[in-house]
Amino acid sequence: QKPRKATPQTGEDTLNGHLPPGWQSYMSPQGRRYYVNTFTNETTWERPSSVPGTPKSPPANSTSVLTVNGYHISGTPVHHLDTGHMSLRKASGDTQINSVTFPHPDVMPEQQLLKPSEWSYCDYFWADKKDSQGNNTVSGFEILLQKQLKGKQMQKEMAEFVRERIKIEEEYAKNLSKLSQNSLAAQEEGTLGEAWAQLKKSLADEAEVHLKFSSKLQSEVEKPLLNFRENFKKDMKKCDHHIADLRKHLASRYAAVEKARKALTERQKDLEVKTQQLEVKLSNKTEEEIKKARRKSTQAGDDLMRCVDLYNQAQSKWFEEMVTTTLELERLEVERVEMIRQHLCQYTQLRHETDMFNQSTVELVDQLLRKVDPAKDRELWVKEHKTGDIRPVDMEI
Amino acid sequence: QKPRKATPQTGEDTLNGHLPPGWQSYMSPQGRRYYVNTFTNETTWERPSSVPGTPKSPPANSTSVLTVNGYHISGTPVHHLDTGHMSLRKASGDTQINSVTFPHPDVMPEQQLLKPSEWSYCDYFWADKKDSQGNNTVSGFEILLQKQLKGKQMQKEMAEFVRERIKIEEEYAKNLSKLSQNSLAAQEEGTLGEAWAQLKKSLADEAEVHLKFSSKLQSEVEKPLLNFRENFKKDMKKCDHHIADLRKHLASRYAAVEKARKALTERQKDLEVKTQQLEVKLSNKTEEEIKKARRKSTQAGDDLMRCVDLYNQAQSKWFEEMVTTTLELERLEVERVEMIRQHLCQYTQLRHETDMFNQSTVELVDQLLRKVDPAKDRELWVKEHKTGDIRPVDMEI
Repeated sequence: QKPRKATPQTGEDTLNGHLPPGWQSYMSPQGRRYYVNTFTNETTWERPSSVPGTPKSPPANSTSVLTVNGYHISGTPVHHLDTGHMSLRKASGDTQINSVTFPHPDVMPEQQLLKPSEWSYCDYFWADKKDSQGNNTVSGFEILLQKQLKGKQMQKEMAEFVRERIKIEEEYAKNLSKLSQNSLAAQEEGTLGEAWAQLKKSLADEAEVHLKFSSKLQSEVEKPLLNFRENFKKDMKKCDHHIADLRKHLASRYAAVEKARKALTERQKDLEVKTQQLEVKLSNKTEEEIKKARRKSTQAGDDLMRCVDLYNQAQSKWFEEMVTTTLELERLEVERVEMIRQHLCQYTQLRHETDMFNQSTVELVDQLLRKVDPAKDRELWVKEHKTGDIRPVDMEI
Repeated sequence: QKPRKATPQTGEDTLNGHLPPGWQSYMSPQGRRYYVNTFTNETTWERPSSVPGTPKSPPANSTSVLTVNGYHISGTPVHHLDTGHMSLRKASGDTQINSVTFPHPDVMPEQQLLKPSEWSYCDYFWADKKDSQGNNTVSGFEILLQKQLKGKQMQKEMAEFVRERIKIEEEYAKNLSKLSQNSLAAQEEGTLGEAWAQLKKSLADEAEVHLKFSSKLQSEVEKPLLNFRENFKKDMKKCDHHIADLRKHLASRYAAVEKARKALTERQKDLEVKTQQLEVKLSNKTEEEIKKARRKSTQAGDDLMRCVDLYNQAQSKWFEEMVTTTLELERLEVERVEMIRQHLCQYTQLRHETDMFNQSTVELVDQLLRKVDPAKDRELWVKEHKTGDIRPVDMEI
């Protein structure tokens, strides 16, 4: 068996020593390193202590969930910004596709793969994909999930194949066993008769060998293949819903952003109109009204910022879950391939054994054939069937 | 294979050198040595010349058939014997059973087996035997013939058995071949998919191995067993009739002896009565009548002697044919056993080969299983199915 490739650690880790078991380190898009506990799925900017057993406590004034997109949520209120400086259009640096925010194609950021040269699931399935008809989109995660389910199906089909082999072996054994009891040439006697009888018996021995083969195929190959991860589909369904829910949540947060952006646009328009009107003395709006309009505009700006914050939180949460979940799926797939490989090796092992045992069934036949002795057989037969050894003599007168 | 035992030569032969090829030497009941050409069945008292190529010419004044019972037929008329000395009763030294003359049980002659320690057919089948119901008798030769026919039957049944094995192998091969083409788990890809595909293909290879096995079983075991001595039954029938005719001839010669014996008894009685009548002057029979009665009596005596001669000739002929024919049957039986042994060895040889070839069908599967690489398979799959490697970024306001 080929030795498994160890996940490569980057320079910082080797400088500071190894991570505690289960932890992996990744690079965020902004170039910050973050750490994931692959057992618990906990994500953190802080490098976990190498001392086992010391629980990680989150910083006092922050939530335990820190975005890995670089945006630190501290829980303190967002500062009021001068909404005048706020761009009414979306920043030209990003684009939303299906509620997910990607960098604009023309402005490619410095992005390093989370797991370079590993062709890892967590690096390649961020975008959604149009399905074959082009009507619906399928998320990258969906595709990974389908692969998992297909893998389970393959495992099941392989077990079915083995079942079919088992049936063939049992049929073969049954036929050999039946023929072994056939009485053809049973009347052959002596040393030749013994050799022939053993030849017939050897078919029963062969039948035994093939029955044993089929029995072991069942217990050592078919059954394990069938029963591996019995609850897999359920588990995958949970997975599916979990990630789908995070996307739905992201979509609703994005809708909120768009709504807030619209509201801000209207408030700013209203303010502008009212200010213009004051200058041209078109109306008797008092400064009170303008202040009110200005206040509403600022509020709309705050709302927008809050919505964008919440959106980014949701996206970060989805991002983290994507990373940890796809890594888990990847691990499951490696396990599946390894499990199947082992059991197919067991199959070939059983085949080897069977052919060997089968060879030994003719050993005794060969022995007895070597002992076949026509002279001995004649003696045996003559002793039993002779009619008389006194020879005739001439008749005397 | 065990080396065949050479027929032992007796002292006289080794003193005078070896017999020409095909000749065997035997001892007659009377202690005279005679020689049999096993190829031509010629029998003679004269030791055949060791010089090859010189034809044996029979002695000038004797028939070519010399009895081996010790009675030399020279063709010259038998001397007239004084019938007065002739016993009217059978000699107490022999007894006839079914027309064959055996020494009287109470007067056991010095009889040495023709082929001592060989349990030869020619030594043990002289007497007839009552069949199971006790109604008819079966000749010893009949029993030997039945054995031959049974041997042919055994050969045929063995071939049938092999045919049944062939059918089983063909069925097995067909099933394996069909399963090999099954598309279960055909969607498995990458290195695991290759190993799986080869595993399935190996079943087709196994099918080939078993088809080859069944094909060789047919040509190298079944067919030879079936075809060995195709005309055997005909040949045995000829044999049977030949020996049976000689027995019938012997029986009719024996009947003639009994008839002649009866006639002599009557003639002797008649002479006695007539002589007595002369002495008591009871009749006026002349000496002429007595002379006539005496002449008739003598003639009857001559007739009896001739009949006994002819009988003994017939018995000798039957005896010779029995020896040579039973020796031939014995040889045929040795050949049959040897032929069967060889072909059963061929069967086991084919079994060995088959198991060996079968082992090699999983070699490639093992190779490919060793090459199974989950990482490689992931790379392959991800390259084909990835949706996008650009990671999401925070939305900017």
